[in-house]
Amino acid sequence: MTVIDIRIELKKGVADPEGTNTKKTLESLGFKGINSVKSVKMFEIELDMPEKEAVAAGEEYCKKLLANPVVQSYKVTVR
Amino acid sequence: MTVIDIRIELKKGVADPEGTNTKKTLESLGFKGINSVKSVKMFEIELDMPEKEAVAAGEEYCKKLLANPVVQSYKVTVR
Repeated sequence: MTVIDIRIELKKGVADPEGTNTKKTLESLGFKGINSVKSVKMFEIELDMPEKEAVAAGEEYCKKLLANPVVQSYKVTVR
Repeated sequence: MTVIDIRIELKKGVADPEGTNTKKTLESLGFKGINSVKSVKMFEIELDMPEKEAVAAGEEYCKKLLANPVVQSYKVTVR
């Protein structure tokens, strides 16, 4: 049994309104020193397979379903 | 400058329709051996402060804005 984390981020240059608005809202609450806020989507998946296979499977899930390669990049890691 | 990851998960027992549906869809695409899929929300925040202060700030952001303590738990880590 392996637990993988799939981290899906927007590629550089792609607008991230959720991140931008979160930054603005935090600042309007009085928080200082925030350079940037990036929103990230993540899936934690428990798989019935050894680590190496699980990472390969996670990458396959991204290619087939979870990520949009035009605007998103992904990274699969073992938890 | 410190980059923190804020990981916001649903608490145990809280329905996670996004995770459930992602699991179903992956299975309908023919993928096997998936025990569970959990959806996680993440923010990557770049802060103008040292690590210890940044983690404390991240926890404050969760309490004041990002997380709903009734159904979500959060964890702040330095990248």
